[in-house]
Amino acid sequence: MTAEDLFVERVKALARAPEGLRVGIGDDAAVVEVGAGLLVATTDLLVAGVDFLPGEEPERIGRRAAAVNLSDLAAMGARPEFFLLSVAFPKHLGADYPLAIARGALSRATPLGAALAGGDLSDAPQTVVSIAFWGRSEARPLLRSGARPGDLVYVSGYPGRAAAGLRIARMLSDFAAQGAPPTPHLVGLAGPQQEELLAAFHDPEPRVALGRALAREGLAHAAIDISDGLGLDAARLARASGVRVVLERERLPLAPALVAFAEVESLDPLALLLGGGDDYELLFAAPPEAAARLDAGGSEWGVSVRRIGVCEAGSGAALRNGSGVEDVMVATRRPQRG
Amino acid sequence: MTAEDLFVERVKALARAPEGLRVGIGDDAAVVEVGAGLLVATTDLLVAGVDFLPGEEPERIGRRAAAVNLSDLAAMGARPEFFLLSVAFPKHLGADYPLAIARGALSRATPLGAALAGGDLSDAPQTVVSIAFWGRSEARPLLRSGARPGDLVYVSGYPGRAAAGLRIARMLSDFAAQGAPPTPHLVGLAGPQQEELLAAFHDPEPRVALGRALAREGLAHAAIDISDGLGLDAARLARASGVRVVLERERLPLAPALVAFAEVESLDPLALLLGGGDDYELLFAAPPEAAARLDAGGSEWGVSVRRIGVCEAGSGAALRNGSGVEDVMVATRRPQRG
Repeated sequence: MTAEDLFVERVKALARAPEGLRVGIGDDAAVVEVGAGLLVATTDLLVAGVDFLPGEEPERIGRRAAAVNLSDLAAMGARPEFFLLSVAFPKHLGADYPLAIARGALSRATPLGAALAGGDLSDAPQTVVSIAFWGRSEARPLLRSGARPGDLVYVSGYPGRAAAGLRIARMLSDFAAQGAPPTPHLVGLAGPQQEELLAAFHDPEPRVALGRALAREGLAHAAIDISDGLGLDAARLARASGVRVVLERERLPLAPALVAFAEVESLDPLALLLGGGDDYELLFAAPPEAAARLDAGGSEWGVSVRRIGVCEAGSGAALRNGSGVEDVMVATRRPQRG
Repeated sequence: MTAEDLFVERVKALARAPEGLRVGIGDDAAVVEVGAGLLVATTDLLVAGVDFLPGEEPERIGRRAAAVNLSDLAAMGARPEFFLLSVAFPKHLGADYPLAIARGALSRATPLGAALAGGDLSDAPQTVVSIAFWGRSEARPLLRSGARPGDLVYVSGYPGRAAAGLRIARMLSDFAAQGAPPTPHLVGLAGPQQEELLAAFHDPEPRVALGRALAREGLAHAAIDISDGLGLDAARLARASGVRVVLERERLPLAPALVAFAEVESLDPLALLLGGGDDYELLFAAPPEAAARLDAGGSEWGVSVRRIGVCEAGSGAALRNGSGVEDVMVATRRPQRG
């Protein structure tokens, strides 16, 4: 259990679950009964120097903050509706700075039909962006629990690219601090590949259309969005569902750009894929009868989905390759977080 | 218009008001249609060194963060239901630190029937607490707009005490930094009076019972919670309603402790009352026919209410005393915010 998971357990013990709260602390979002429907609500806080690099463009910070929250709603299969945006920032950045953050957040929210409903401003020594986003369940919400032995495990897109992108962004930031030319390239990595990896980190795409389809069409028993690495989040889904998630090594979707970056940096691309973070792809457990629809789908959801494993009786997350099965190595998302 | 009010206007221009959003940016909270009911949602961000003193006890920070949000719901006449809590903090404060903040927030929320539904944790160089709180309207929500000429203006409690409490807390913090004994008293101020003023700042009581009664019984045409000073928030209510708010000097509720503090510090108690902040009392415009109920009420709402002025045709907020009428001097809430 990570420190964050442990904290979640301790807060749950503190707060009694009230009437009307269908899903409380510990899933991707909370689910609350409102009238005849279900409200799905989530929040994420982004801190300069921790969740994004200091000096990052405010539009990009806002866009990413909205995407991270929308990803939580996607993992619940909810339709996003409204959000509240709070910005704390150093005054020397100017009055346009929080407005640019709002504009960035709206650039992600508006195309999905969601709107800004309110917020708060404050001074702070460094920028902090907090968003609370809510939406409505059109069907039964997708939880982390619910996977059963025999379910197939799917993932959207190409996890690991964001972790590579973060490393590149840090290198570029270091280059810039040393007075290097404004847009250097990593030696050995093609320009478009570098851009692809940077975009995966800076501008993750929340999988809202996919999540809504999974919930509406009953294509998944359980789902989670990958914020802390495929390995760690697979283990979380396994724990919440009381199953063992076995990932098959040769099925894992390795993006060519990720492989090229790992080659240049002498890293294991699989370690980035399993132990990286900030992907905001969906990992989900599907009943076998959904396989035909899932294997054919993708174009209408804006992202490919791929079968990468199975759920078995047992616990934990494991990796199966030709020679056997090993527990998934779980690296924490951010070294400074411990 | 303050910088914050100007920002609100600019964000409103950015974000189109969508269907289902009854009240958007610029009131105490947002109001959204959900099924047959109305959801009322608000958020506030508290930053160490700006909204609370560094080194403040975490329970107290959490309790105050919840109270500030609950005050927004009170000003809308809503019944609080659920909240999301995000905490960013320096790791050296330890894993119990955010838990203590959660415990503090729950100590305010639980007695009002509201529950913690989720949240987020992050590292940060200094503590930031963000809460998003939502509730339900049992009647028509109370807005800042809606006051009419002829309405009576009421306020709950004793504004200005929190501003005095903040000044005392800063002095005590400075004393402590200079190695003074742990619980010094301001010379000339009685111990219980000092405690009363400190508590008004550290532990404001959200006026939820009063706000719900105003909405349910139709006792108010408009309401706002006083977060930035009675004068400034009276001007906001006046602008939103398109009326002139005239406060009558001899009716303003001056707490004896505030008068004593002002005397000791050679300050004008009226300036603290009108220009202070962090009071979280309710200011509201009531139809004349509600006066009998309001003048008799109070005991069941946990706070006294007092008639302090009238709404007239015109604009702005003014102060009437024996010799004439002057515009209310509006001081900003926090000097470091400008």
